Amino acid sequence: MSATLAELAARFGCELRGDPDLVVDTVGTLTGAGANAVSFLANPLYRSELSRTNAAAVILEERFQAGCAAAALVTANPYATYARVAEFLHPPPLPVPGIHPSAWVAEGAQVPESVEIGPLAVVGRAACLGESVVIGPGAIVGEQARIGEGTRLLPRATILERVVIGARCVIHSGATIGADGFGFAQEEGAWTKVPQLGGVVIGDDVEIGTNTSIDRGTIEDTVIEDGVKLDNLIQIGHNVRVGEHTVMAALGGISGSTRIGRRCMIAGAVVMVGHIEICDDVLVTFHSTVTRSITQPGTFSGALPADEAKRWRRNAARFRSLDEAARRQLRERKDEG
Amino acid sequence: MSATLAELAARFGCELRGDPDLVVDTVGTLTGAGANAVSFLANPLYRSELSRTNAAAVILEERFQAGCAAAALVTANPYATYARVAEFLHPPPLPVPGIHPSAWVAEGAQVPESVEIGPLAVVGRAACLGESVVIGPGAIVGEQARIGEGTRLLPRATILERVVIGARCVIHSGATIGADGFGFAQEEGAWTKVPQLGGVVIGDDVEIGTNTSIDRGTIEDTVIEDGVKLDNLIQIGHNVRVGEHTVMAALGGISGSTRIGRRCMIAGAVVMVGHIEICDDVLVTFHSTVTRSITQPGTFSGALPADEAKRWRRNAARFRSLDEAARRQLRERKDEG
Amino acid sequence: MSATLAELAARFGCELRGDPDLVVDTVGTLTGAGANAVSFLANPLYRSELSRTNAAAVILEERFQAGCAAAALVTANPYATYARVAEFLHPPPLPVPGIHPSAWVAEGAQVPESVEIGPLAVVGRAACLGESVVIGPGAIVGEQARIGEGTRLLPRATILERVVIGARCVIHSGATIGADGFGFAQEEGAWTKVPQLGGVVIGDDVEIGTNTSIDRGTIEDTVIEDGVKLDNLIQIGHNVRVGEHTVMAALGGISGSTRIGRRCMIAGAVVMVGHIEICDDVLVTFHSTVTRSITQPGTFSGALPADEAKRWRRNAARFRSLDEAARRQLRERKDEG
Repeated sequence: MSATLAELAARFGCELRGDPDLVVDTVGTLTGAGANAVSFLANPLYRSELSRTNAAAVILEERFQAGCAAAALVTANPYATYARVAEFLHPPPLPVPGIHPSAWVAEGAQVPESVEIGPLAVVGRAACLGESVVIGPGAIVGEQARIGEGTRLLPRATILERVVIGARCVIHSGATIGADGFGFAQEEGAWTKVPQLGGVVIGDDVEIGTNTSIDRGTIEDTVIEDGVKLDNLIQIGHNVRVGEHTVMAALGGISGSTRIGRRCMIAGAVVMVGHIEICDDVLVTFHSTVTRSITQPGTFSGALPADEAKRWRRNAARFRSLDEAARRQLRERKDEG
Repeated sequence: MSATLAELAARFGCELRGDPDLVVDTVGTLTGAGANAVSFLANPLYRSELSRTNAAAVILEERFQAGCAAAALVTANPYATYARVAEFLHPPPLPVPGIHPSAWVAEGAQVPESVEIGPLAVVGRAACLGESVVIGPGAIVGEQARIGEGTRLLPRATILERVVIGARCVIHSGATIGADGFGFAQEEGAWTKVPQLGGVVIGDDVEIGTNTSIDRGTIEDTVIEDGVKLDNLIQIGHNVRVGEHTVMAALGGISGSTRIGRRCMIAGAVVMVGHIEICDDVLVTFHSTVTRSITQPGTFSGALPADEAKRWRRNAARFRSLDEAARRQLRERKDEG
Repeated sequence: MSATLAELAARFGCELRGDPDLVVDTVGTLTGAGANAVSFLANPLYRSELSRTNAAAVILEERFQAGCAAAALVTANPYATYARVAEFLHPPPLPVPGIHPSAWVAEGAQVPESVEIGPLAVVGRAACLGESVVIGPGAIVGEQARIGEGTRLLPRATILERVVIGARCVIHSGATIGADGFGFAQEEGAWTKVPQLGGVVIGDDVEIGTNTSIDRGTIEDTVIEDGVKLDNLIQIGHNVRVGEHTVMAALGGISGSTRIGRRCMIAGAVVMVGHIEICDDVLVTFHSTVTRSITQPGTFSGALPADEAKRWRRNAARFRSLDEAARRQLRERKDEG
């Protein structure tokens, strides 16, 4: 797709500073963009690159416009505007309706004519797909699962029985939704499986990353609300609830029955114990261990940065006797006093 | 399935306090259960809900019976009893014997008539399946692998060549058992692959979670003993041995050649270095880093809880100079003395 | 395969001390090897086992030869030599050229006659496979992807559209290469997807572990250079670059746009924030959190070892007020002074 800068400015509500007739047909980074590309400045760190960019135009805030070597598409939210421009110039492929002959669709599954089902995919008995759903190659939809309109399952995504997914979701390769939660009762030194009878309910506009696991509830449902974005290799335990528009980066985990509020931002590799509650608008920084409920919005941290090994080892050794040293010191001061 | 309370009490060895003729057909949480449901109290934290529950009956210990608004099924181990009652009322589906026409079963594979093989599953050459095994949609059984009686592979579980799995196991979607261990020899700045010639041997009654990886041994076997339960997204390195009835929650990892004893309880996100030994009956709490062998039963911890970011940063900065500060202090005290 | 010790010594450049006519046909550990097996000593910790081994021969360094109960194959790099001997005695299976009838190969895909495509595999439109490529059962090659000569995709490996993989790579089961990076622009409390338009480019001789995820770049490419070895369950974010011959053990993660140098050794469970640079020849120890660029070669650490729970809790409590205690102490000393 190509467009003039004037067309982009009009369509995406930007103020244009520069030649309205310039034609662009792709996007690029400030340093990599050519004369046919639109770039953007979202992170002020890269500001210095504005003066050297070869882009046709740069999407940016008013305050950075002065130093820009290219035409400027001025907007209050350059990153979101960039996202829209990029999608406009590179529209995602539309579903190609039809069921691939190598796929297996069970009798009784509801598959509207607008649905695309790829090679070697499986749609189980009594599953129900909405309009324009895409089931990628090798993806699996379990029995009685429901997939909302416009949702896309990428290759090898796995949706197990009775899981409910809303509209316009993206479920990436290897994601597994609706496996049994990890529930076992201890008895005479061994473990008895606790049946996992609940489901998983996922709202609209949710994105679930590759190889992420979301377990079904023990009795009631695990719930992922509208607009949640989960990155790759995340574990969501049984009975968890994640609130609207919360985002969570890769390699994190939420243990069973924990509830996360709305609009939280959870950085990569953050893990949370079970049975706690995180309120709305909480930000947790990289690789933190959350062990208690959080009842006030704010930012929480919990990782010690890596250090040169020799110094780290000495400090870690001190940590190991931190309490002992404090007690000794207290005694000494008392003796002195 | 439905049953009277009298039938449940008799079948599961409970003492019934309440109407023996009440009929139940499902289970529920204390707050969610309706008049046709059995609930349970396993965690004393939820005790206050006993007086308000609408459940037909609650499975609980003698000591909590007094406050219960419903009939009581009294037992010494309510959670294990609940697990059995739930399975009785909601029995898991039986295998539906037969090989789906879209599956591919190699010539020479041993597949008893009682086995269910789902759509688009693969059973490799000379694989050997026990009675009543279930191979779910898209699951893969490698060449010469052996799967014991009654074991179930959920959709897309992957068992590689020569892996041996015992009876009554459950292998969840995306789990990968028997890939090469991570072994490379360094040589002139590059890495030469060390052939991974061992196997994986998994005992009876083992459960392996979604997207968990268990690598084959380098020369001998990686071993998971009877009754072990591994949650999702766990890494088990080559040559590891995990002892009977040990449980391990999600996102953890055991590095190569480490041995874990029996009946250990390893919380989520715990990682262990290689070549160490953990004795029987060790409990490791959430997100710990285990770097040394543990030779005595007990509880071990290793995570610092997340804190309000400003305070965390100040404490982390102090940590960074902990040893330096201690040395300085020691010098000052000497100077004073 | 079998060989005499004389043949092995000649072929792999070892000096033989012992009977040149002894025949071996397998490998074994020092404690497990029988009279038909070659063993090795790479880790001096196991030196004491040399005097008791039943192996036919042991591959070792000159300095350990004296104590060895078996014939010795003396070499400067026993582990690399062992790797070659093991591969010689147990050669990996050759590709069996042909397309399995249950696989689906799109029209227009380039598939040389030397390629093996297993049951229920998918090769998408305009994909291009090199000579002797192996596509395992259930593996997926996306549209326009390119797979170099001799590369093997294990069962259920997933290569998405336009990904480029070099020669002689091994991509293990469940690995997912080329999914969208995690990019969303915040807007009025919700998140707009940023199209992920870049690709993934993987060099030659790379190995990627099970269930590892490598995301495609946002605009440019995510790059994994020649000779890199990534273990299982690793997350590589969009726009990351990993330098030649760097190795990374399981459960780690590199956040978006971070660059790792050449010949780095990154232990298990190490996580790195985004937008940093790690120079060549850096070693990061187990479970570290890397939050800043590293500009000098060396060893970096960041994990506190687990400790007996009671002591850990007391030390963690002291950590929580480390800064406060230091300030109080400073005030007290001033008051005294």
